[in-house]
Order: sequence, then structure tokens, then C-alpha cells
Amino acid sequence: MIGIEDIRQAAEEIRHRVRLTPVLPSPDLSEETGCDVVLKCENLQVTGSYKPRAAFTVLERLADAGRKAGVALSSSGNFASALAYAGRVLNVPTALVMMQKTAPFKVEKTKRYGGEVVFCENQYEARFEALQRLGVERRMTVINHLDNADVIAGHGTIGVEVVEQVPDVAAVLVPASTGGLLAGVATAVKATLPHARIVGVQPEGSNAVALSFTRGEVVRISEVDTICDALTATCPGPLPWEHIRRYVDDVVTVSDDEVKRAVAFLAERAKLVVEAGGAVAVAALRAATIRFPGKKVVAILSGGNIDPSTLARWLSEAAGLG
Amino acid sequence: MIGIEDIRQAAEEIRHRVRLTPVLPSPDLSEETGCDVVLKCENLQVTGSYKPRAAFTVLERLADAGRKAGVALSSSGNFASALAYAGRVLNVPTALVMMQKTAPFKVEKTKRYGGEVVFCENQYEARFEALQRLGVERRMTVINHLDNADVIAGHGTIGVEVVEQVPDVAAVLVPASTGGLLAGVATAVKATLPHARIVGVQPEGSNAVALSFTRGEVVRISEVDTICDALTATCPGPLPWEHIRRYVDDVVTVSDDEVKRAVAFLAERAKLVVEAGGAVAVAALRAATIRFPGKKVVAILSGGNIDPSTLARWLSEAAGLG
Repeated sequence: MIGIEDIRQAAEEIRHRVRLTPVLPSPDLSEETGCDVVLKCENLQVTGSYKPRAAFTVLERLADAGRKAGVALSSSGNFASALAYAGRVLNVPTALVMMQKTAPFKVEKTKRYGGEVVFCENQYEARFEALQRLGVERRMTVINHLDNADVIAGHGTIGVEVVEQVPDVAAVLVPASTGGLLAGVATAVKATLPHARIVGVQPEGSNAVALSFTRGEVVRISEVDTICDALTATCPGPLPWEHIRRYVDDVVTVSDDEVKRAVAFLAERAKLVVEAGGAVAVAALRAATIRFPGKKVVAILSGGNIDPSTLARWLSEAAGLG
Repeated sequence: MIGIEDIRQAAEEIRHRVRLTPVLPSPDLSEETGCDVVLKCENLQVTGSYKPRAAFTVLERLADAGRKAGVALSSSGNFASALAYAGRVLNVPTALVMMQKTAPFKVEKTKRYGGEVVFCENQYEARFEALQRLGVERRMTVINHLDNADVIAGHGTIGVEVVEQVPDVAAVLVPASTGGLLAGVATAVKATLPHARIVGVQPEGSNAVALSFTRGEVVRISEVDTICDALTATCPGPLPWEHIRRYVDDVVTVSDDEVKRAVAFLAERAKLVVEAGGAVAVAALRAATIRFPGKKVVAILSGGNIDPSTLARWLSEAAGLG
């Protein structure tokens, strides 16, 4: 288990590397939902998602030999580009294992930040074989982001900021996939504000954390079907889960349609580009899945890396043109 | 002429009404342009543009009788919705004169904030007649935003913030239409940092301030042709002009295509929704119309009120799908 001291230490370590992202009150959303809604804008974080917090925490804590050999990770999305970016800043080689079917714009983004992309076959297991090879043959440090304490500590730094920026927060809504972000934020917030409610939000079609929460044990789902391409873990990570079961108050789900409308709403009303997975907290508030009337509620917008043509389509649909 | 003390006083008056908008470094834009670019995000201001700064300054300075009778303004855009919003917050009636041809979504936005929309015929002069009637018959205070010192002072508060948030700023790029924003920002910044360069940016098809700057006197243009619907003044206001000629170092222009690409770039890379007129400073940097190599440059993003279907179209075009 990690504690608030681990998270505060991570916050200190990465302070000059990541952005203290703004918190923006949303009068439109507050009027609509009856809560006093504040948006924590991790979509405005460097690389467009919250992942550099974990990436820098992991790299900063590597010994010199580890820094020289570099770090390998399997991810096709936000963690890949964040690790590539952090590696470039700290001069640590990074290898990102991606399946051959990975969308070209994701590959491009990771390469743009200087990461080495290592392709593997289009099978879940092939990724682990490729990672193992990088570990054995090139002595790279392989990050298992499902179960890494530094990852949770890095993500928890968002919780430290939320408590400082919004000291009267009554509830925090957090997107969940492996549960690392949810675990870190919950641990950080509860340490200072034990009465604040922490709520995880998942897509209906990728609800492993929600199911686990209901049943009180880790549940693995067999299929994932959602437009939230950053929220597709089939089960919570074991270490995140231990924090979630202790600190989280509820986990709710939202439909893909609600998510699309939240993305369009945030662009039109809050002037923020947010990706599907980053908009689930706002989707939950707007759908009245969960509300805290009259209370200060922070919705974490975890990322903004949406393909422009996808954003264009959802904007058109929301405008009644789709 | 207004001075830095007027602007500082306005900043104090409106402090609890408007947002201290974030300044976001843009690594992508810095890499592309060779400048150290920071975005001043007035698109994230309440109502989605910088205009509430002027609206609150004007309303806060009204005497009690004036507050009771209310305020009238001719605008179909950002100033209309900002004044309606400020009026609702301060409990001052507002009437916004708009031509009958005004786009419905602009009318809707102003009404949503509680403003009374007064339609007039589709002629430039009809607006002034309608305003006069509101002044005479309903004793409302009519704001001539072309030539109002409180408007310049209100907008100048952005300059005060820029100097505090980015103390090593070497140049500020400012969208220009009537020149009120440019005048206010230039006055504020030069008072503290006399060596900082202040550059106005206009669309090629609406270049009255640029022409005036070149000729050294107020020039009125006969036609306006631009996608920047917030930047369509046919001449600088007389009072703004007096400040511009004294404090501004240069005024440049950008093409509509450059603006469209800047809007798409800001959405994709900076995760910010910015309207056409709000993106001209970034367009100028990207087109190399003006650059300050190695220097800290602040680009003011003056607004984000773009029709979602327009944003969708420009995103598609930039992605090669249009």
C-alpha cells in the first residue's frame, strides 16, 4: 500500500516536469446539475493527459544504470506518448510496445516525442513476450503499469493538487480503467479530507472496476466494448484494487452516447478538448448518474487526445447534423 | 488617455467577477516557431471570451440610478453575451441590439445569460437608432464600445495579469478589431515592461488597424471579408487609436486559411477550443508573419465562441477530410 507521504514525495520529484493544471469552475455545468462543478484539466497537462505524472515518477526513481538502459512499456495510447516525452526530457531511452493494428496517429504521436515503437503481433499475450525480450536482451526496466506503486503515487499527485486548489471539495469524480488514477487520487484526497466522497466512473461497456466494487473482489470481464479507448482494462490492477476497496465510495457507469454528448458539451461550453475517456465524469454528472446537490464537485478531465476527425463527427452529431 | 492606474483599479474592481485565466506554455508551438510560446487563455474566461472584463468594469462604475435603468449595447457577439452575463450577476438590466439577420445561436447565447435582445433592421445605422431609443425612452446607459475609457481599462486587466504571470515576456501578440483590447493590453504591459514588444494581429480581410498603423492615422475600410466574425470593425475606435499609436510596436495580418489551421492546431495540440478571431496571434506565429526567436512570447487567445459545426468542418479540413 502507498500512503500520502509517498504521493507528496512524488509531487515534489515531478514538480518541475509536469504542469500544475488549472481548475476551472463550470457555471453552465453547475446550473445544469445543481452541483458546484469544478473541472480539473488534465487534458491541458503536457502530452495531453495525466500520464506524465506517473511517467516522470517512474523515471526519476530509476537508479543510474536503469536510466542508461532505459524503460519499456506496453501501451498504444496516453501512457506511451507520456513515457516517450518524459524519456526525452530526462534523457532516458524508452521503448513502447504496440500491436501492429495500432492506429497510426497514436504511433506517430509517440514517435514525435522520441519514443522507440516496437511492434508485436495483434494478440494480447504478444505484448508481454515483446516486453520480456526488451527486458532480457536490452536490460530495459519493464514497467507493469497494472501493479506499480510509483505509478499510483505519480497519479495521486492530482489528488494533492485538488485538495490545495479546491479545499472545500465535497466529491471527486475520477475516470477508471486499471484503477491506478482512481487509487492514487482517492488515497491522496482521503488523507486530507476523509469526508470527501471519491467516485470512480467507467463506461458501461468496460466496467471491470465497477463490477469488482459491487462484488467486493477483483472481477475480470471477457469483453470490452466502448468508445473510450483509454479505458479498456479488463480488470483492475491488484495494487490499485487494494486502495480502491479501502478509499473509494462508489463506482458508476455511463453509456457511450452520454460520453459523446459530454465531449461535445465540453468543447462548446467549456472550450476544452477532452477525449472520450476523459469526459466520463462530466457524462455521469450530466446524466444524473451521480450528483451532490449544492456541493463542490471536482470532475477530473483525464485527457484530451482525441482524433480530430472523431471530435468533428461528435460535434456534428451533437449539433444535430450527424 | 487612460493609464496603468486606471487599469489596476479596474483589475481590483472586477477581481471577484472574472477569472484569472491560465497561461499555458505550448511545447508544440515553441518547437515549431523557435519562440518560447505561452498561451493566455481568455477562451477559458467566463462566457468564453475576454469581454466580461470590460462589461464588469462598465457596470461596476455605474451610479445607482444607472444600474437601475440598465445598459444598452449594440453587439451580436461576445460583448453582447458578456454584458448580459455581467448584468445578471450584478442585477443590472441589459438590452442588446442585434440585426434581424443575426445568427440564432448568438441570439440564444445572449438570452441564456438573461439579456434582453432588441432586434433592428439589417442596416448598420439602424443599430444606432435602436440604441438611441433605448437611451431616451428607457433612460438606459448606452455604451459606445468604440470609444469608452472603461472598456479599454477593463481589457487592459489582461495586460496586468500577463506581466504577473509571465514576468519575462518579451512580446505580446494581441487580436485587433476596434483596437480596444490591443490598446488596453499595450498600455498595461508597456507601463511595467517598456521594452516588451506589443504586436496587433488582424485578418487580411479586416485590416483597419493595420492600415491605420502604417499610415499613421485612422483609416476606415469600406469592406470586410473574413471568417473572423469577432474582428470586423471597419476602423479603430478614436480612443483606442490614441493608445495604439503611442504604445504598439507593430500590426500584422493573417489569411483566413492560416486562421482555420490555427484553430485546428489549437484543438489538436493544445486541447483548447478557440474561435477564428481568437486564433489570429497563433496563426501569425505559425505563418512566420512575426517571430521572436528564443524569446518568451505571449499569444492572447481572446475567445472560444465558435459554432460547433464550424469547428467540426475546420477540424475535418485540417485532417485532410474536408
